[in-house]
Amino acid sequence: MEVVYWEGQRLVLLDQTKLPHQTTYVTCSHYQEVAEAIYSLKVRGAPAIGVAAAYGCALAAFNYRDDLGMSLEQFLDQAGRELLATRPTAVNLRWALERMNDVYQNIREKSLENVRSGLLEAALQIHDRERKLEEKMATFGASLVPPKANILTYCNTGALATAGWGTALGVIRAAHNDGKNVRVFVPETRPVLQGARLTAWELHGAGIPYTLITDNMLGYVFLHEGIDLVLVGADRIVSNGDFANKIGTYGLAVLAKYHQCPFYVVAPSSTIDLNLKEGKEIPIEMRDPREVREIRGQLVSVKNCAVLNPAFDVTPHDLVTAVITEKGVLSPPFKKSIKSSFDEEGAYR
Amino acid sequence: MEVVYWEGQRLVLLDQTKLPHQTTYVTCSHYQEVAEAIYSLKVRGAPAIGVAAAYGCALAAFNYRDDLGMSLEQFLDQAGRELLATRPTAVNLRWALERMNDVYQNIREKSLENVRSGLLEAALQIHDRERKLEEKMATFGASLVPPKANILTYCNTGALATAGWGTALGVIRAAHNDGKNVRVFVPETRPVLQGARLTAWELHGAGIPYTLITDNMLGYVFLHEGIDLVLVGADRIVSNGDFANKIGTYGLAVLAKYHQCPFYVVAPSSTIDLNLKEGKEIPIEMRDPREVREIRGQLVSVKNCAVLNPAFDVTPHDLVTAVITEKGVLSPPFKKSIKSSFDEEGAYR
Repeated sequence: MEVVYWEGQRLVLLDQTKLPHQTTYVTCSHYQEVAEAIYSLKVRGAPAIGVAAAYGCALAAFNYRDDLGMSLEQFLDQAGRELLATRPTAVNLRWALERMNDVYQNIREKSLENVRSGLLEAALQIHDRERKLEEKMATFGASLVPPKANILTYCNTGALATAGWGTALGVIRAAHNDGKNVRVFVPETRPVLQGARLTAWELHGAGIPYTLITDNMLGYVFLHEGIDLVLVGADRIVSNGDFANKIGTYGLAVLAKYHQCPFYVVAPSSTIDLNLKEGKEIPIEMRDPREVREIRGQLVSVKNCAVLNPAFDVTPHDLVTAVITEKGVLSPPFKKSIKSSFDEEGAYR
Repeated sequence: MEVVYWEGQRLVLLDQTKLPHQTTYVTCSHYQEVAEAIYSLKVRGAPAIGVAAAYGCALAAFNYRDDLGMSLEQFLDQAGRELLATRPTAVNLRWALERMNDVYQNIREKSLENVRSGLLEAALQIHDRERKLEEKMATFGASLVPPKANILTYCNTGALATAGWGTALGVIRAAHNDGKNVRVFVPETRPVLQGARLTAWELHGAGIPYTLITDNMLGYVFLHEGIDLVLVGADRIVSNGDFANKIGTYGLAVLAKYHQCPFYVVAPSSTIDLNLKEGKEIPIEMRDPREVREIRGQLVSVKNCAVLNPAFDVTPHDLVTAVITEKGVLSPPFKKSIKSSFDEEGAYR
């Protein structure tokens, strides 16, 4: 099942808000539809957002007409800004748009047709690169999974989140494919229920044993089920190893520490933001209060009550056992290991 | 608003499964309807369950007919067993039924009419005692609340849970009435959403400022909002201070410890079970998997997926700052302070 793909001059996205009950696709023929799809979580997960935004940027080139009252560059700039504004926390989005802009700067003197095909090719490459990176990460990560393991994961970090193989869930999939006896605990992940709706559905499809729990059962599961390792994704990792991920990850990390359980973060290096030194600098997206007051459109509390709805929280690096990227397993001190993983390849790209 | 009251020869209960959208009452004319109401959470909260069960026991005496093929004592025994079986974790239920049995043993030689009125009087006394105890607890607890305080509570521990003034929420109410500037964070408390549906509704009604959050936002709130104290109820406290409470309480206690935040348990002494030495001896009720797979009747995950649904977890005493009962504020070491709080009044009753 493809989560994001290009067809003709349009981008097709699996509508993840309708899963697991309906498998429907939305077709975007304008970049603004891609922006709306990212904002409304039809496509979500840091790597998948990056891929979709890259295609969105290519789509903008196809949308350009010379009677729009602006140049192609201005139009692409505007598209980039609108796509970037959809989700402030995941850095893969910015990463992908910067890559696309670099490509554009190299081919800007070419004809409109050539710019279009050049940008499309770049988006396809970003997508393809993502798939390959994730296979590497999954292999690195699977080496850390014991032959028999109870694994706690969080939110959705599978094929749906990455338009590839998955990050944390990719590791679980690889361990399962290696013949390891894994059992996965899946917190539902309120308010948007990515765990209940998406991770359970992916694990079900892959035939990997799993147990659905509510988010407040984490402590119980550590105590009574015995967790061998925690595997989560990330939306942004900064220089010192602090990272932003789905709201609730921080509490999970504290519980893992309390239970002396290994806690791994799995993310491609496009998730790493070397411009930021500490996690507190990461902007946290606040979403619509209705996501909390309502569940799947049904009011469950007092109408218009005050609500907090941060989509992410930040986990400090001292709660992290290792960060698994396509470049390997990075251990503390992260400031050093993260930096050297980039240095090995020279400039960050 | 009365949560539980006796009218004629029937017990009337506010149906808490319908809140906050509908305020409807169920009328029980047979003790088995009371048992069903407890099992299906129409009435819930450890103290309220105890009060309802006491009335249920009195109701059984009214239900007795001499053509039932058993003696009144046999019938009351059966009723007691059925009421006790509804919820295994909260010990107030057992406590109330034992009190009712003691009363019965004292009046068993009397006429059926006198037994009926004697048991009804005993149930009314248990209810009245509960109300008075809770006022005392609230006063003791409120003395620990600073003039300006961000308070994190959990599940519902208000008038709805206790058929009185409330335990943890009673403390909050008392602090607010004392003119303290309190702001309450209310986790929704999946799967049954007692926080979102009941606590938010009670605080709204009382005009106490509150903010609704999902259960996975606890860590975020500790970090970004600043919590001055945590106040929770309990379903059973054992000799060493370990206690069972709504699933998720343990994770909350670990976070409070990590953030060096005071963590108070508020419960009447009828919640204390001196028969058990350690928390691991407390039976944990496992509920219907559909409560997790579904939210308010709507399937949110894979049909028939494997689920854990423990209604409670056990928090070890070393995470507890103090236990607040009607007898005072009990501090560590709890083994000693809990025991002496009973010794002061002689036998436990």
